[in-house]
Amino acid sequence: MSFTLLKTSPNSAARLGLLRTDHGDIPTPIFMPVGTAASVKAVSPRDLREMDAKIILANTYHLHLRPGTPLIAKMGGIHKFCSWQGPVLTDSGGFQVWSLKELRKIKENGVEFRSHLDGSKHFFSPESVMQAQREIGADIIMAFDECTPYPSTIEQAQKSLDCTKRWTRTAKEWLSKNPPLHGYNQKFFGIIQGGTHEELRLQAIEELKQIEPDGYAIGGLSVGEPAEEMYKISALCTQHIPETHPRYIMGVGTPWNILELILRGLDMFDCVMPTRNARNGMLFTSKGVLHYKSAIHKESEAPIDENCTCYTCKNFSRAYLRHLIHSNELLVLQLASIHNLHFYLHLMQQAREKIAEGVFEEWAGEQIHCLNQHLLYYK
Amino acid sequence: MSFTLLKTSPNSAARLGLLRTDHGDIPTPIFMPVGTAASVKAVSPRDLREMDAKIILANTYHLHLRPGTPLIAKMGGIHKFCSWQGPVLTDSGGFQVWSLKELRKIKENGVEFRSHLDGSKHFFSPESVMQAQREIGADIIMAFDECTPYPSTIEQAQKSLDCTKRWTRTAKEWLSKNPPLHGYNQKFFGIIQGGTHEELRLQAIEELKQIEPDGYAIGGLSVGEPAEEMYKISALCTQHIPETHPRYIMGVGTPWNILELILRGLDMFDCVMPTRNARNGMLFTSKGVLHYKSAIHKESEAPIDENCTCYTCKNFSRAYLRHLIHSNELLVLQLASIHNLHFYLHLMQQAREKIAEGVFEEWAGEQIHCLNQHLLYYK
Repeated sequence: MSFTLLKTSPNSAARLGLLRTDHGDIPTPIFMPVGTAASVKAVSPRDLREMDAKIILANTYHLHLRPGTPLIAKMGGIHKFCSWQGPVLTDSGGFQVWSLKELRKIKENGVEFRSHLDGSKHFFSPESVMQAQREIGADIIMAFDECTPYPSTIEQAQKSLDCTKRWTRTAKEWLSKNPPLHGYNQKFFGIIQGGTHEELRLQAIEELKQIEPDGYAIGGLSVGEPAEEMYKISALCTQHIPETHPRYIMGVGTPWNILELILRGLDMFDCVMPTRNARNGMLFTSKGVLHYKSAIHKESEAPIDENCTCYTCKNFSRAYLRHLIHSNELLVLQLASIHNLHFYLHLMQQAREKIAEGVFEEWAGEQIHCLNQHLLYYK
Repeated sequence: MSFTLLKTSPNSAARLGLLRTDHGDIPTPIFMPVGTAASVKAVSPRDLREMDAKIILANTYHLHLRPGTPLIAKMGGIHKFCSWQGPVLTDSGGFQVWSLKELRKIKENGVEFRSHLDGSKHFFSPESVMQAQREIGADIIMAFDECTPYPSTIEQAQKSLDCTKRWTRTAKEWLSKNPPLHGYNQKFFGIIQGGTHEELRLQAIEELKQIEPDGYAIGGLSVGEPAEEMYKISALCTQHIPETHPRYIMGVGTPWNILELILRGLDMFDCVMPTRNARNGMLFTSKGVLHYKSAIHKESEAPIDENCTCYTCKNFSRAYLRHLIHSNELLVLQLASIHNLHFYLHLMQQAREKIAEGVFEEWAGEQIHCLNQHLLYYK
């Protein structure tokens, strides 16, 4: 097995693990910066290395449209293409095509959709998406799933889950007959659907156990349901996913969401929030959320976060960052993104340390309380 | 004197010098990356250091409007504000307010203008602009001038020059009574105006000699006149500026413009071209100009310039850069700007080496011919 469970917590489901890939080892719990189109927005690969990112994520849907996955294959795979030598995970595009709503039509054997860029017609099947992920060449690839909307009746959710189950089997079979293209192994993760229906989530896990994926992902959460519902379903899932396998919850979330989910036994996380919010003026700090466009920072010589060791905090004041964003200076997008990503990655590093020390629960409780504050009057 | 003339060329006016400031030494000829609003667009100070930038430029007009020069003073000066510890030069805002055309009114004692941002009314006088530059705290500050348009009659140009002459004296006197605010020296450069009228340019230089600035800048060129006219006026000026002083031509230009002007005895250059053109799709290479949006680079694994050692060329292909710009990915603005600035700075470094070796003229001739090619079919 490429996943080693190093430690479990006596007082919660939090756990410490190590996931090995041909491009490097990933300690868990881990946060994966999102590089949608083979670029973590506004951040260079060397910035990612400096902040000790262990793995990044890219989106098959976006890479299929631009530049096209055959081109990435021709360029030697995504690592070479974007100059990132560490591990990469690609999603399957299932969530993106599902999000297209009026632009897509779910069929028995896949999804027909129109590009959000130019309206051109495309078709994703479980096989074509595996082919695309073989071409991209990520270290971890995801099954093609059908996301269940929230809310959904049990009948709707069952129908949707049946689709995901069928497609996951098809994908696994296709992969067994079509080896990787770039000379290294690609792990296959299945996706658990089932909406907020507990019995369907358990059914999904039982089915996946038979398919024997390298890891289990929880999909279809963070799609509008209350956070408590997300935590409850996640906790239920981790009680039934084999503890020998990595557990990934897709597209979540805030720093406090992630800590709550580590407490419930999740190992892997990704979200556009650190980079997107950075560009929009919202920074995460050890004392809470800071809105750096605010006039209260106009003359502040303080860094964003006095406890932070990122490039931005070591070199720039809030006054300067505020000046840059009000002046539409591109540099601020880079500096703010670096800070927020560093914050997420450092939080995960601390989480691993606290789990190792056996004191995660108390620490996480304090952090969840603190990080969630909005520091409108922060001095 | 803070400027040392190290070597002159036997076959041209090209020369090697060293300009000392309290924030570091500047070897000449030198190119100064432009950081309009105290930020070189899309490029971080550590990127600037890595490409061995020796001095950067900022614009008093822009800093006056945002964030306001008193704020920069309060933050300890521009070096601390933008985390750049090397030398900085600020222009006087003369060119910017002149460019505002309908938004400004030139008066006896200064220029009344409206902000291009919000229409608010402002007034720049020779004294207020020196005050602003004291507050910003650049190592080299410029006299407030009145730019002469092209074309202009000799009467118009004389009137305009008289204004610059008067304001330059006023500025120098004001500076003598108002010492620097940040604990280090600020050199004062005068600006030579006179349009394309040779006798006026000579008159301007004679006047400046009496004022005894630390350096001489040529203003009012690259404002629409043919390049040959710019070269002719520049050559005339350098024949009359004392060789003991640094010579700066403002706002010029392409790599080949700069080599032509080094041949004519100029030492210092600045231009937004490397960063602006990088963002718009145009990259400079050792073989000519490359348009990286072009379809011909779609599958190219080659770097932008095989002879370039910048971060971008060492790590990324043309195919990747093309993908990024077509996908509106912010990273490309950073990578392309780094390349173009590195190209300019490296060209200046080579120029200094060639002057030192006494072979500048032949090398420059080849470069001028080569760099000016547009590589539409570049392979």
